Amino acid sequence: MSERKRRKTEAPPIEQVAGNGLLDRRALLGRGLAIAGAAGTGAGLTSAAADPLKNDPWSLEMGSVVPAYQVPSRFEKDVVRTRSNPNNEFRNSHARTPHQLLQGTVTPNGLFFSISHSGLPDIDPAQHKLVIHGLVKQPLVYTVESLSRYPMVTRMHFVECAGNSAPMFSNEPMQQTAQALHGLCSNAEWTGVPLSTLLEETGIDPKAKWLFGEGADSLGLHRSVPIKKALDDAMIALYQNGERIQPGNGYPMRLLLPGYQGNMNIKHVRRIKLIDQPAMSFYEAKTYSQVLPNGKSWLFHFTMEVKSFITQPSFGLAMKGPGIYQISGIAYSGNGRIQRVMVSADGGKSWAEAALQGPIHPKAFTRFSIPWKWDGQPAILQSRAWDEAGNVQPLRADFVAARGQTEKPLATPLAFPNQHYNSITSWGIEPNGSIKHVYA
Amino acid sequence: MSERKRRKTEAPPIEQVAGNGLLDRRALLGRGLAIAGAAGTGAGLTSAAADPLKNDPWSLEMGSVVPAYQVPSRFEKDVVRTRSNPNNEFRNSHARTPHQLLQGTVTPNGLFFSISHSGLPDIDPAQHKLVIHGLVKQPLVYTVESLSRYPMVTRMHFVECAGNSAPMFSNEPMQQTAQALHGLCSNAEWTGVPLSTLLEETGIDPKAKWLFGEGADSLGLHRSVPIKKALDDAMIALYQNGERIQPGNGYPMRLLLPGYQGNMNIKHVRRIKLIDQPAMSFYEAKTYSQVLPNGKSWLFHFTMEVKSFITQPSFGLAMKGPGIYQISGIAYSGNGRIQRVMVSADGGKSWAEAALQGPIHPKAFTRFSIPWKWDGQPAILQSRAWDEAGNVQPLRADFVAARGQTEKPLATPLAFPNQHYNSITSWGIEPNGSIKHVYA
Repeated sequence: MSERKRRKTEAPPIEQVAGNGLLDRRALLGRGLAIAGAAGTGAGLTSAAADPLKNDPWSLEMGSVVPAYQVPSRFEKDVVRTRSNPNNEFRNSHARTPHQLLQGTVTPNGLFFSISHSGLPDIDPAQHKLVIHGLVKQPLVYTVESLSRYPMVTRMHFVECAGNSAPMFSNEPMQQTAQALHGLCSNAEWTGVPLSTLLEETGIDPKAKWLFGEGADSLGLHRSVPIKKALDDAMIALYQNGERIQPGNGYPMRLLLPGYQGNMNIKHVRRIKLIDQPAMSFYEAKTYSQVLPNGKSWLFHFTMEVKSFITQPSFGLAMKGPGIYQISGIAYSGNGRIQRVMVSADGGKSWAEAALQGPIHPKAFTRFSIPWKWDGQPAILQSRAWDEAGNVQPLRADFVAARGQTEKPLATPLAFPNQHYNSITSWGIEPNGSIKHVYA
Repeated sequence: MSERKRRKTEAPPIEQVAGNGLLDRRALLGRGLAIAGAAGTGAGLTSAAADPLKNDPWSLEMGSVVPAYQVPSRFEKDVVRTRSNPNNEFRNSHARTPHQLLQGTVTPNGLFFSISHSGLPDIDPAQHKLVIHGLVKQPLVYTVESLSRYPMVTRMHFVECAGNSAPMFSNEPMQQTAQALHGLCSNAEWTGVPLSTLLEETGIDPKAKWLFGEGADSLGLHRSVPIKKALDDAMIALYQNGERIQPGNGYPMRLLLPGYQGNMNIKHVRRIKLIDQPAMSFYEAKTYSQVLPNGKSWLFHFTMEVKSFITQPSFGLAMKGPGIYQISGIAYSGNGRIQRVMVSADGGKSWAEAALQGPIHPKAFTRFSIPWKWDGQPAILQSRAWDEAGNVQPLRADFVAARGQTEKPLATPLAFPNQHYNSITSWGIEPNGSIKHVYA
């Protein structure tokens, strides 16, 4: 609905629609001064400050040079990825997206999360090759140049590490930012060649049921992928948000499996071998087989299920006194589009529907928001998402019963269970404006 | 349509659907080996090269450190904006987007075009203020922090300088890249507060028909905007592709007027004053009043009309011998969504419909593509777009008759006529594979 249309409809209720001050998701639209007073937002222009602008120093002098490749303002120096291995020791490196400082749905390439198991390979794109072989009718070799001859598709998709949100398995809430808790997922526009196009060209032996993908990094990361997914929406992606994929995200090409756990979206992909059964490689046989409380394991559970979390307000930010705030966050599902997000300000006792900022793409971040009138008293903020396939984000008690939790302190980042967390995140607001991570 | 669905439908014709080798836009999908032979694309894997991958040097050693803010591969060092004022002399600075090297629809922030009239101001966002005053009921001052309290919207939109494509007014085709010809337009996801929300808060005096917007750069750039547009889809944008707007694009906030000429989308906006008639400032009275061949002028022609151009192949790139190529480009309209793009390989004698890569957003880049079997003979490639409002990109002869052209060489970048070019771009393919800019 356009702003013009919305303005002509009846003003939505300003009364709270759920406990602890949640307002109708349209409450600040089409209402005018009724909100200004309540919100303490826009400040009145007093006669003493009739032109509060004229002495800004940056308005009085020539500015600095325009760079060839633009970068953020120096005032945004803290809006960076946090790194688990900044000295590049001989182990893997995580770089997490600062969700609490971002808005909208696109993650800019500079801040897209990455996990590298053996540093960033310095790949010459003119030398890089992708081989498709194994149970095919004709093995073929592709280069960056030859792939540019094929029809490409462009789609918005999230990628999420299966181990994202691992600290949420702790039996005590860890006091960490949305970046530390949930920073191993990001969202971008990907452009590449559908894998189905290439497999139609090589031909598929009817015995082929899986493919074995391998990266060109020195770890040679490899995973098995069902042929069905390869023929569905998989692509060999070459571009991310319009430019070539950056080194941490798979330069010069990666296997993109929308909605599947990040590790399977093989970066720097150099080999796709069609096989008749899964290869049972290190990553599927050990790291990505999730142990359940009943002693059984999840094996080959690839889809990242429906999930949401509030990014503002959240731990590490602060409330500046009672008044109107926007609760904002992101929701996504490996099963398709987000259908609905509900928000609670009283720890789950009552819920109100958040506004979804369209368009809503399948298997992509959807931004939700809802206005909130904070009265300065304790509150607990939560979000809960539904996807178009009918899945709902589980409540924490149900999730823990089904999937388990770990003792505090979390023994090691690889302690089981540690993957596919998709339950609710709760932020506790204190009267002094500080924000805690709580379980509720 | 998903890949799976498409594969089950009948294979599209591989015969050409328009002159000089244009193939059906679905020709390379669902066809398999029939294309591999014709295309000379994927190369056969010979037994002598059974594993062409194992000696890649980057697969044999630990890679480099993961940075906090990611940057492109060193092999992409030429994928940068070209600058008109790299030494920051006391004049304006253009930085153009390298369209011929990009794909998809999002322009990454590092490569988003910018024009700065007095360098990049070093604005402290905690000190920056936006004043809304003039013919309002209550003047108000907003800060970055206070704007975060309002409901935000997230939308994909292009911004284009009215002077983009100015070299196309030359009466002889200038041998320049798509970047040099058309690089003053880019596309991003913007997040901000609808201006209508703020104007409802200040209230609008019925005498107010225009607003006067002013930037905080030392030029104090200012333009007049009809109130009607301000109440339609205008926003005070704070985020671009998820992160804070970068300095060259308006940090910490800009007026975004989707589909209107770039100069009006005031960067670093610090003042919006409601007035009863246009201010007739420098930019509207002189620079942006377009002189027509009949001696009259366009004044207040704000909308950037429907336009498209082919980005690959294009001048500065090269063809690598006869075979299958993808013709790819971008289309957009300030009037709404792109409805259709037609492509010609014979200089406009015959046309075929290109595939549009969805989703198609209003007032945003839409990527089009069509496969082309080049026989090695001369060819002239063109694209022509239609928008949902029923507008069509004019043919060059009609455009020049209505709007004029300039003598060669183009006397100055400000020579009239020089703005709102939206006619067709033609690329001439030579038998040796080189590509020229031609008029056809």
